[in-house]
Amino acid sequence: MLEEIESNASLLNHEARFIRVRELTEVLCENLAVEDYGLQAVAETSPAKWHLAHTSWFFETFILCKYAADYKAYDSQFEFLFNSYYNAVGEQYPRAKRHLLSRPTVEEVFEYRKLVTDSISQLLNSATEDLLKKVIPLVELGIHHEQQHQELLLTDLKYNLFQNPMFPAYCATRSEAHFDGISSSPAQWSQFDSGLVTIGVNNLAGSSTFSFDNECPKHQVYLNSYELSNRLVTNGEYIEFIESGGYQQPKLWLSDGWDARKKNGWAAPLYWFKREGRWYHYTLLGIKPVNLSSPLCHISYYEADAYATWKSSRLPTEEEWEHAALQVSGSGNFLHTEHLEPIPVHSEIGIQQLFGDVWEWTQSSYRPYPGFKPLEGAVGEYNGKFMANQFVLRGGSCVTSQDHIRATYRNFFYPDARWQFSGFRLARDL
Amino acid sequence: MLEEIESNASLLNHEARFIRVRELTEVLCENLAVEDYGLQAVAETSPAKWHLAHTSWFFETFILCKYAADYKAYDSQFEFLFNSYYNAVGEQYPRAKRHLLSRPTVEEVFEYRKLVTDSISQLLNSATEDLLKKVIPLVELGIHHEQQHQELLLTDLKYNLFQNPMFPAYCATRSEAHFDGISSSPAQWSQFDSGLVTIGVNNLAGSSTFSFDNECPKHQVYLNSYELSNRLVTNGEYIEFIESGGYQQPKLWLSDGWDARKKNGWAAPLYWFKREGRWYHYTLLGIKPVNLSSPLCHISYYEADAYATWKSSRLPTEEEWEHAALQVSGSGNFLHTEHLEPIPVHSEIGIQQLFGDVWEWTQSSYRPYPGFKPLEGAVGEYNGKFMANQFVLRGGSCVTSQDHIRATYRNFFYPDARWQFSGFRLARDL
Amino acid sequence: MLEEIESNASLLNHEARFIRVRELTEVLCENLAVEDYGLQAVAETSPAKWHLAHTSWFFETFILCKYAADYKAYDSQFEFLFNSYYNAVGEQYPRAKRHLLSRPTVEEVFEYRKLVTDSISQLLNSATEDLLKKVIPLVELGIHHEQQHQELLLTDLKYNLFQNPMFPAYCATRSEAHFDGISSSPAQWSQFDSGLVTIGVNNLAGSSTFSFDNECPKHQVYLNSYELSNRLVTNGEYIEFIESGGYQQPKLWLSDGWDARKKNGWAAPLYWFKREGRWYHYTLLGIKPVNLSSPLCHISYYEADAYATWKSSRLPTEEEWEHAALQVSGSGNFLHTEHLEPIPVHSEIGIQQLFGDVWEWTQSSYRPYPGFKPLEGAVGEYNGKFMANQFVLRGGSCVTSQDHIRATYRNFFYPDARWQFSGFRLARDL
Amino acid sequence: MLEEIESNASLLNHEARFIRVRELTEVLCENLAVEDYGLQAVAETSPAKWHLAHTSWFFETFILCKYAADYKAYDSQFEFLFNSYYNAVGEQYPRAKRHLLSRPTVEEVFEYRKLVTDSISQLLNSATEDLLKKVIPLVELGIHHEQQHQELLLTDLKYNLFQNPMFPAYCATRSEAHFDGISSSPAQWSQFDSGLVTIGVNNLAGSSTFSFDNECPKHQVYLNSYELSNRLVTNGEYIEFIESGGYQQPKLWLSDGWDARKKNGWAAPLYWFKREGRWYHYTLLGIKPVNLSSPLCHISYYEADAYATWKSSRLPTEEEWEHAALQVSGSGNFLHTEHLEPIPVHSEIGIQQLFGDVWEWTQSSYRPYPGFKPLEGAVGEYNGKFMANQFVLRGGSCVTSQDHIRATYRNFFYPDARWQFSGFRLARDL
Repeated sequence: MLEEIESNASLLNHEARFIRVRELTEVLCENLAVEDYGLQAVAETSPAKWHLAHTSWFFETFILCKYAADYKAYDSQFEFLFNSYYNAVGEQYPRAKRHLLSRPTVEEVFEYRKLVTDSISQLLNSATEDLLKKVIPLVELGIHHEQQHQELLLTDLKYNLFQNPMFPAYCATRSEAHFDGISSSPAQWSQFDSGLVTIGVNNLAGSSTFSFDNECPKHQVYLNSYELSNRLVTNGEYIEFIESGGYQQPKLWLSDGWDARKKNGWAAPLYWFKREGRWYHYTLLGIKPVNLSSPLCHISYYEADAYATWKSSRLPTEEEWEHAALQVSGSGNFLHTEHLEPIPVHSEIGIQQLFGDVWEWTQSSYRPYPGFKPLEGAVGEYNGKFMANQFVLRGGSCVTSQDHIRATYRNFFYPDARWQFSGFRLARDL
Repeated sequence: MLEEIESNASLLNHEARFIRVRELTEVLCENLAVEDYGLQAVAETSPAKWHLAHTSWFFETFILCKYAADYKAYDSQFEFLFNSYYNAVGEQYPRAKRHLLSRPTVEEVFEYRKLVTDSISQLLNSATEDLLKKVIPLVELGIHHEQQHQELLLTDLKYNLFQNPMFPAYCATRSEAHFDGISSSPAQWSQFDSGLVTIGVNNLAGSSTFSFDNECPKHQVYLNSYELSNRLVTNGEYIEFIESGGYQQPKLWLSDGWDARKKNGWAAPLYWFKREGRWYHYTLLGIKPVNLSSPLCHISYYEADAYATWKSSRLPTEEEWEHAALQVSGSGNFLHTEHLEPIPVHSEIGIQQLFGDVWEWTQSSYRPYPGFKPLEGAVGEYNGKFMANQFVLRGGSCVTSQDHIRATYRNFFYPDARWQFSGFRLARDL
Repeated sequence: MLEEIESNASLLNHEARFIRVRELTEVLCENLAVEDYGLQAVAETSPAKWHLAHTSWFFETFILCKYAADYKAYDSQFEFLFNSYYNAVGEQYPRAKRHLLSRPTVEEVFEYRKLVTDSISQLLNSATEDLLKKVIPLVELGIHHEQQHQELLLTDLKYNLFQNPMFPAYCATRSEAHFDGISSSPAQWSQFDSGLVTIGVNNLAGSSTFSFDNECPKHQVYLNSYELSNRLVTNGEYIEFIESGGYQQPKLWLSDGWDARKKNGWAAPLYWFKREGRWYHYTLLGIKPVNLSSPLCHISYYEADAYATWKSSRLPTEEEWEHAALQVSGSGNFLHTEHLEPIPVHSEIGIQQLFGDVWEWTQSSYRPYPGFKPLEGAVGEYNGKFMANQFVLRGGSCVTSQDHIRATYRNFFYPDARWQFSGFRLARDL
Repeated sequence: MLEEIESNASLLNHEARFIRVRELTEVLCENLAVEDYGLQAVAETSPAKWHLAHTSWFFETFILCKYAADYKAYDSQFEFLFNSYYNAVGEQYPRAKRHLLSRPTVEEVFEYRKLVTDSISQLLNSATEDLLKKVIPLVELGIHHEQQHQELLLTDLKYNLFQNPMFPAYCATRSEAHFDGISSSPAQWSQFDSGLVTIGVNNLAGSSTFSFDNECPKHQVYLNSYELSNRLVTNGEYIEFIESGGYQQPKLWLSDGWDARKKNGWAAPLYWFKREGRWYHYTLLGIKPVNLSSPLCHISYYEADAYATWKSSRLPTEEEWEHAALQVSGSGNFLHTEHLEPIPVHSEIGIQQLFGDVWEWTQSSYRPYPGFKPLEGAVGEYNGKFMANQFVLRGGSCVTSQDHIRATYRNFFYPDARWQFSGFRLARDL
């Protein structure tokens, strides 16, 4: 069902794509008990219900309230409750307390979603050409915004359900593929020459492909020659690091990373535990043995960096990654495969796994490209104001929609974040 | 409906009383949405679902698992999830994280309750005399334990629903009585002579009336002559304190109280806010204007003490309170009135409002009576281990069951607690 | 030298006693390096320099500024810097930051002391009878205040010097007595009958003996029959508790105590460590082996209570303690012995060690006696405002001046405090 | 005196430069009271005594203990006490507790310094050529290390003395120059063309000029065309930002910056306060009126970024700054001028104030240059492990030694740091 919804998404027209994305969000909630919708273990992991409402609020605030003449809001208080961080729009309900909103109920939020979805559809079908010119870029932004929240909905649910010592699964295994017996070959290095390369895109009005403002503008960067591993670091490789005492040697760690390790008591990736000599981890499908050949997932930037130091390597810069990614296809183990976990590499030819499986930490801190300009108006708060203290991740993961990702796409998280589907590949100077 | 359930409770036999108490807990949840059952704003305010499960766990752990030969537990993990603080029974799931238990679902918890209720009934009907001698005191303890959690369920819900800026009511006004026009006469003083008085009870095996271990044993105390106000301090009287700058004058406050006031930003009782010159407060029935004649509620020990200092008075000791209470009837504005709020005093004859309306802060810290012995076994953790740092409150409140309370009953909370239905009356030395 | 200063103190007239107390404070600092005067590890342990200045500020603020017509303050800013907690006098420099006051320098503080001492002397010698009636009670209060700070100065220094991993001693051993070989006999019980007893004192104007307001008024209390251990709990006895796993058994502990134990990682008294199977502790004389026969010291109320529970005993109430203490002499191992540590009991006849050695935790929370009235004016903040959340300790310690203590004297600390010279004796119901 | 010591420093041979740097550290302490040496208000601001000892520890640990055959350590415990963060050398005394080390005393630390200084001198005079090849680069590193701590000593002292409400000055005004009447001309823009530029240096063995490992290796970077302000932002310009409500408008701030502003209550630069409509600030010379023409100092990265956003500008990247700085001389208002504060620009010709006055925040996060390799051994912890979460500052300040700085020099602090002498200049895309 998911697969069907995802396929050929890019061919559809705006309204149809809008409808399909709105539907997918709801499909992702099909297995939830009413009680699951409200879970929030830490400020960062919002309740599923909040994601459902906030994505609707986005369309309501930035489109319906501005451009749909006769639109009547479902509830005027939602403005305050479901604003995430747009100061230009007004005050926000405290992020860490979203789990305290038992009302509106799940049922009411679904009604709210329906009202918003129908109203946008109607607007798209009735608007003048002039109005459409204003509205369509915002609908496009809203679609990509909702796809981001689909991923967060799953990522947050994983973390929140994990707090329950009964470890309830998000769903039963959906895919019939099994990867347990597969063993991975040693990683190989792919070389890239030094020189000026072009990074980023120019977001032209009327462009057929969407980009966020943080991917702009297109600009030149000089790269020294370098090489990238042809695949992601695997669980099996990381277990070697653990067992060699990697978590006990300060010399392998960044200073802030060592402090974070001690403060948080990190001794393995998030969700991992060892029982009778074997590693297991919690997944959206429940507790599973760790597959040695699968890509490592749920580690912080600091752990990625320490592993790379241990391997006398380093993480790639975001420009090195993008330069490589522009040369391969953008397909991979994304949400539509329904694996909901990273899977072993299937090929040794060429550079693999750049897209899907796990978000790849880069050594680049998230900052504006030369010439960066935020969007105008309140949506200008979307990206630019986060350009400090975070690191760039690239390539999407097994819980990302494939049509949401591209080679120039920049995701970003704080270096101690582990609840994202984050892993990495190694790089070296030549 | 509530009223019917409450009446004549003391006449019923053990099983019938057990069933009625179990039913009342569920009646109290009738108006809740599934989403409301999981709310927990701070560690102290457990989710309604947790109260429903924990009270069942109590009967299961201390009676069924020990005395019901063929009892099969609903789920072996509940032992860990729904233990509150009994270290002798085992580890506990962290208190502050109870809101993260979306599973078991509400429906499953009701199934669990039914299993436990039915199994206790069956045990009471099938047990030998010898077994009944062991079981009945524990059933009695369990009944009073569940009544305590009925009150906590309402008290916690009030706090948790209040976090929602839409301020949902727990229920519509149930009672037809109205108290808005009533004005209160000035308080009067009731005098008590000095001398030796008898405090507490002896909990004899086979006694017809139940007491907690902390009310024992009966002992003598010498009291100086004193006087008590004939009624509780009212909202109107407390507003005078607020408006005279009581919250800004350190000389009125205990040192720890002044620190708590500053740290928490207290400037009025919990749930109060002022709009256009008039005070309102959140109640279980929604937002209401503050009734000037009603007893003050939801203040800390520190605020009670500061008010008393401002009035050149003091709080009563628990012995002074008990000595007075032994001389009046134990009826009052309890849960069965369905007011769910304290109400104005109706009489000026004699000392009023000792029972019901609000728990009365005393100046006595909670400590063992001379000769105190905790219960044997794990239930010995019920009371004794809390005998430090808390203050005694007396008399029950508008959300307490009337048949749960008596003159010797000792409740206890930390001096900065405000979410309980807590108020006070003044005392003076003669 | 110390001994000489202390002896016969009660016989001297006011001025002479004032001078001797002022001198003693300075004698206690003789061994300090300039750098030591500023140490403050936590908010509670003020720098020695601050104690030197604050005790002078007390005389300056409450006497000189009010009654010495031509007094010129050494520095007007000292009002703010050296006020401890008297809100009626004005704002205070934050307690936790006292170590940041490198200026005034130590030398300047000694100059300030001299000015204050000389000015008080002069006032006492030149005042009219009427003025003396007002001034002498305040000088008396100031003397006792300074004696309290002498003890705190040593207690705080012990804690602050202990933070240095080189463990510098406050001074070399001064006394020639040695107690290493002494072994203690088993404790015995002293019985007391039930009945009404008189507790506290009445502080009459013109009384020849000083008392703090918190010891007043004299009042009657009914005591059940009880027995007290004839000596303090020893280090050797407490080691048995440690080695039997006392710190690992929650059932022995108060609930708040168990939380404090876990949070602070307590596994032995403060200052203790084990090396090669033997216990050592830091003392004012440097690192020493723990003497098994000496009284246990530097434990919290919670540890005292847990030990008593382990021994099927309890702590005495403050009234039980006072009733016993009124029957013995007030001499003991006080500051003038220069041991600076508690020492083994020397006699088995009668109840021992009630005075000196260590402050004895009682199970009584610190609260006003019936009819308590604080002093008038700003000095009214001296005691009353601390009457919540603390426990009463009795009898003085090896760093208290003997002429500062009496049977009715009430000291008080929070139940988690361990840096005081605090120990305990056991009690039981008869 | 300072000026004399500083002049021509680069011409001297190693030993003479070593001696002069060691002497300068002590000269900087000439005005301190013994009590001042121990001040530490927060973990980041180490006591002066600790700086004096740690810089000696550095020479002792990395040179004397390794290469001076018969060297006898002054005290074996100093290894633990004065190690800053070198995990490879061993455990460290907790940073936040350095103020608790009253021993060793100031006098002992000066003795320790003398021993280390003499021993290094002796080693330099007696070592073989082969040994000198190993030792001289480490002496050079130690000299630059000590120069960094000279600056920190003053920076930390400023912060620590400021905690005292008497605001003691570090010293009286030394310089005779006065800048009060000077008014600054409007800033002008200097343009730079796009293209490949060379950044950084190669640290060749035997190189006559010193560089830290973080400045290496030399590499190419492509810059878009840009322009830089010809001078630093002034106090007067920043007051316009304050008075236009800059601290109240979230849209001007990075998200983390806005959070920091709220959490810390920032409403002006550190050390500033307003009295009767005029701005004053605390300086090393005491309280002074804010000079409107002087460069702004003591602001965080977030404040610099918010100001730049308000001015529709941005901060320069570190490469843009370095490219400009390579074209001008490295002289400026450094430590030897003895102003100890930034001063107004004296010229409008060419780009001014790149060197001295204040460290300039750049928008570049601190990260390894392409091809970066840390030093071998324990000194490898000097720089590399801090390459996350900090931002690069350039150009040195009025408390930096001029011979310590060069165009390629990279300093780095967290974006919320304000106690450094930090300011900024504006940049724009062309």
